[in-house]
Amino acid sequence: MQLKQQRGQLIILSGPSGAGKGTVCQAAMAHSSSLKISISATTRAPRGEEKDGVEYFFLDEAEFEKKIEEGAFLEYAKVHDHYYGTPKAHVLQMLDEGMNVILEIDVQGAAQIKEKLGFGILIFIAPPSIEVLKERLVNRQTDSDAQIQLRMKNAMSELKQATQYDYVIVNNTVDQAVADLEAIIRAEQCRSQNNLEIIEEMLM
Amino acid sequence: MQLKQQRGQLIILSGPSGAGKGTVCQAAMAHSSSLKISISATTRAPRGEEKDGVEYFFLDEAEFEKKIEEGAFLEYAKVHDHYYGTPKAHVLQMLDEGMNVILEIDVQGAAQIKEKLGFGILIFIAPPSIEVLKERLVNRQTDSDAQIQLRMKNAMSELKQATQYDYVIVNNTVDQAVADLEAIIRAEQCRSQNNLEIIEEMLM
Repeated sequence: MQLKQQRGQLIILSGPSGAGKGTVCQAAMAHSSSLKISISATTRAPRGEEKDGVEYFFLDEAEFEKKIEEGAFLEYAKVHDHYYGTPKAHVLQMLDEGMNVILEIDVQGAAQIKEKLGFGILIFIAPPSIEVLKERLVNRQTDSDAQIQLRMKNAMSELKQATQYDYVIVNNTVDQAVADLEAIIRAEQCRSQNNLEIIEEMLM
Repeated sequence: MQLKQQRGQLIILSGPSGAGKGTVCQAAMAHSSSLKISISATTRAPRGEEKDGVEYFFLDEAEFEKKIEEGAFLEYAKVHDHYYGTPKAHVLQMLDEGMNVILEIDVQGAAQIKEKLGFGILIFIAPPSIEVLKERLVNRQTDSDAQIQLRMKNAMSELKQATQYDYVIVNNTVDQAVADLEAIIRAEQCRSQNNLEIIEEMLM
């Protein structure tokens, strides 16, 4: 029997800086060709080798603001005088093609996007402990002590929101966290509301 | 960090005769030592090599009826003059030990058990198509034509209930169905309500 292509899953991912979101996503995408991270739009200029449609969709300010008016973004924000946004059409097209799409969004935006779209899997990536989180931030050697303190404070306030997510992946090891993410995507594809068609076909 | 042992998941499994519930469960248990099928109690006599506490818990009628009065069964039924029941204490003990416990229950009983306990993952195992289901029943060579017709009629009425389940596993192949079952168990362990303790510990 030929199975119809299922619509992809939208994965709305949050978690504190240092929890390992980026590493887990990269490792999961290396495993599965049907998993993609959504590309953001921005008004900042391309840096170095950055290409339009690869790292970002590069727009000028007038284009970006027109798209805001058209409701073309799932969410957007202005950071250091530049706009950043998640293009709705880009995300929906990948889902229609059967791709599972990861959206990395802060805790403020995540629930709003799920409400706006009416679907999406909310996943929070947590560190195994506060001590490990601090260790990871220190070992990066990219932040000053003051920056690390700020990140730790933000992490605590983000962790308070974790229970509002559908799932919490505790990132003990990358392999385990990737396996958790893959299991969640596979399980969500088995949700009964995602299998109504095949059941209805049998009952015809 | 030492993780606390998580409580096991209760998997309430239904599906038409011929959908492959038994085969999928046996294959999944062969993969994972933490997955167990709940043992039923019965008043029928042991057959052949059957041992108490292995195939069934063997009780006499007075013992069984006393347990009914005590509310010791999650569900029970009398079939051909013999009682069959699911002992609540046995199931809860395995869950406390961290085992994932499968309960094979008909569509009438499944939702009631979840409601009674307040937890449990409802999984429906469906055949890939009605044609494949009939083929499997015919190939078994254990049923008469009349019995197969009755089973097909029952299957249609059971399939109508599938959408009431949390998950539907379409059993195209045993390997795929086992992988789906394993993904569901793993994903459910990531549900945020199953990770409240670790989050609370970090916030202390």
